[in-house]
Amino acid sequence: GGCWVDHFGFDVNLTFKQRYLVANQYWKKENGVILFYTGNEGDITWFCKNTGFMWDVAEELKAMLVFAEHRYYGESLPFGNLSFTDSKHLNYLTSEQALADFAILIESLKKNIPGARNSPVIAIGGSYGGMLAAWFRMKYPHIVIGALAASAPIWQFMDLVPCGNSWKAIDRLTSTGEGVQWISEAFHLCNPLRSQTDIIVLKSWLAETWVNLAMVDYPYSSDFLMPLPAWPIKEVCKYLTDPNESDKVLIQNLSQAVNIYYNYSGEANCLNTSQTATSNLGIQGWSYQACTEMVMPICTTGISDMFEPQEWDFAAYSDQCFLEWGVRPRPLWIPTVFGGKNISSHSNIIFSNGALDPWYAGGVNENITDNLVSIVIPDGAHHLDLRARNIDDPQSVLFARAKEVEYMKKWIEQFNGLWKKY
Amino acid sequence: GGCWVDHFGFDVNLTFKQRYLVANQYWKKENGVILFYTGNEGDITWFCKNTGFMWDVAEELKAMLVFAEHRYYGESLPFGNLSFTDSKHLNYLTSEQALADFAILIESLKKNIPGARNSPVIAIGGSYGGMLAAWFRMKYPHIVIGALAASAPIWQFMDLVPCGNSWKAIDRLTSTGEGVQWISEAFHLCNPLRSQTDIIVLKSWLAETWVNLAMVDYPYSSDFLMPLPAWPIKEVCKYLTDPNESDKVLIQNLSQAVNIYYNYSGEANCLNTSQTATSNLGIQGWSYQACTEMVMPICTTGISDMFEPQEWDFAAYSDQCFLEWGVRPRPLWIPTVFGGKNISSHSNIIFSNGALDPWYAGGVNENITDNLVSIVIPDGAHHLDLRARNIDDPQSVLFARAKEVEYMKKWIEQFNGLWKKY
Repeated sequence: GGCWVDHFGFDVNLTFKQRYLVANQYWKKENGVILFYTGNEGDITWFCKNTGFMWDVAEELKAMLVFAEHRYYGESLPFGNLSFTDSKHLNYLTSEQALADFAILIESLKKNIPGARNSPVIAIGGSYGGMLAAWFRMKYPHIVIGALAASAPIWQFMDLVPCGNSWKAIDRLTSTGEGVQWISEAFHLCNPLRSQTDIIVLKSWLAETWVNLAMVDYPYSSDFLMPLPAWPIKEVCKYLTDPNESDKVLIQNLSQAVNIYYNYSGEANCLNTSQTATSNLGIQGWSYQACTEMVMPICTTGISDMFEPQEWDFAAYSDQCFLEWGVRPRPLWIPTVFGGKNISSHSNIIFSNGALDPWYAGGVNENITDNLVSIVIPDGAHHLDLRARNIDDPQSVLFARAKEVEYMKKWIEQFNGLWKKY
Repeated sequence: GGCWVDHFGFDVNLTFKQRYLVANQYWKKENGVILFYTGNEGDITWFCKNTGFMWDVAEELKAMLVFAEHRYYGESLPFGNLSFTDSKHLNYLTSEQALADFAILIESLKKNIPGARNSPVIAIGGSYGGMLAAWFRMKYPHIVIGALAASAPIWQFMDLVPCGNSWKAIDRLTSTGEGVQWISEAFHLCNPLRSQTDIIVLKSWLAETWVNLAMVDYPYSSDFLMPLPAWPIKEVCKYLTDPNESDKVLIQNLSQAVNIYYNYSGEANCLNTSQTATSNLGIQGWSYQACTEMVMPICTTGISDMFEPQEWDFAAYSDQCFLEWGVRPRPLWIPTVFGGKNISSHSNIIFSNGALDPWYAGGVNENITDNLVSIVIPDGAHHLDLRARNIDDPQSVLFARAKEVEYMKKWIEQFNGLWKKY
């Protein structure tokens, strides 16, 4: 078998192999369910390991677990090593193609696994995978009876979000050649700063670091984006208490703070500003997606937040995309195709969001209808609810998971009720 | 402005001009509606003229009328005269691309027409246009509040429909050279039969003629596919009363019957077996669509119907498509993407079907839910309900149209109710 490289055109009549993982030890054919993880921008085995929630509920829901890899990530490369060579080969990396892959995979599993034909299927995903889970239910409600979209910022798109300092110390220090060299050493950079562009890269690497750190501010030590202690933000902030220190002391403190994130294991000899998270995430693929469909503007004020003030400059962004990938973004397409804020006619989607998560503001944080519900986890970072049970889990996430299971059971009952009528 | 040639990929960054017609003399900004015709496989001005229903209800519904042309038909050619040259240029002719065109057109009209921003929109279409109207509501419920899908055989696809004789006279006569020549003359063919292939073409042309004739079996004289008298089937059948005549008399009668369809106006000097309907329909485009997504198997038994017995031979069909267009059909894709028979989670779609219409069996002819309803018109042919009011309209079509308007008013009320909450 295999998936069509292009579901939406017939000129390229090629197929590729999509990777997926199946666990059926808890599955009961009679009244079980298929929990289907809609893979996001990375290696599916890594998502499988970091989505303990599905394993924790498998027995109770008599569930088969399926983890499907997203095209162009992990081993699911439509053109093998050539997949990222140019915009022609990258042309089939879109969320719509990925959803069609999922639809066809589920149809084929139901056809080929004895007893699965009439099993209900629930989509589950976190982050971009959570957006995919929600969109999958919206576009293919005949294939999945519901979706759990954890930390899915489906509203972090143009026209949907309002536009919203060690930074100054870096500016002052990097105004002299000596200062630039000093900073390179203070941060233990693998590649010393050489140009103005390198300094911009350093600053965006730092900004991304703070965002990532906030995403994984979990209540116990974990290894998701990086190996980290429990509540890592607290650890980091220990080094960032006094903004009135001298520039050099500020930067030295900052360097120690950054090391909590990048070198908690103590194994790194130097820090690489081109990487901000686990190599299980496909940064190439995501960079392309951010330059086409997944245009998620973030602007910062420097006043209500800790980031350098920055306006959203779409023209510059588009030019940068064209330079890098030979494509130009279409920032309004995602709201057009997936409904933007106007999604009330859909049903059976749970949007869960952690209030500690930097992506929180782009998520759905109020019930839209009785069937399109929000669960807010005050002590939760990025999709904490999808992680495995842990002794240090706060009450709020235990409550969220219980609610999620309750909704899923309701959907399964509804489905079985309808089914029996025929 | 313009439409993206490819909504689902970013490598081809071209746009084209889509044609659309707007009539706003009846439109009231305050509480009106936009009725949006989802154009099908032909010139949009012809659909505009043949969808009198929309004009007839415009005043009552205070409606703006929009007729949008389907890409690759009429004047909406993505690559101008080159649009049909090869499978590369044809690659963007799909129903999904057409739906995305409609979505973006509506967004742009609502942005650019003063007072239209918050107007509700209802999709209306007949035949393939009716499928598009239904699918548009299913996939873009945030853009249209409901759809009227007239004579839309959305279930005439593989795995969804069960497989289901002047023919013999033609076989006997064409077994001799003299007989072949005689038949060419009897039918006044523009191009005399020369080969076995020509005879197959003749038979499929006749079969298509009967199907078309049944589609336009309207209660008054009309000019849709061809200029015809009222109830044309009755006229044709006058010539086909005695199946026990000699072969030559049978064929002469058949020829006169066929002339009712092809030459009721008396203006045709000869009949062309490569054309079965108005040139307003794009036969090239539809032939390509039938070879890719729109695979609608029709099989005939010769016993329960009047057609030559024929099994559905997918392999042969696929080979023929590859020969003609360089593409192979994917017959299961449409049910996968649009839900097949499992569409109950959608809402606000009316499926109307005429019981005289040969496409009736592929339509939705029972209510699925309170919001997904069927209207059967016992005396109706192919989307008679979409045609202009006529003195000879049977009661059943008047009743159907009244019901349709009632549903549309309900959707508009629902929408206005929701809207006022904000």
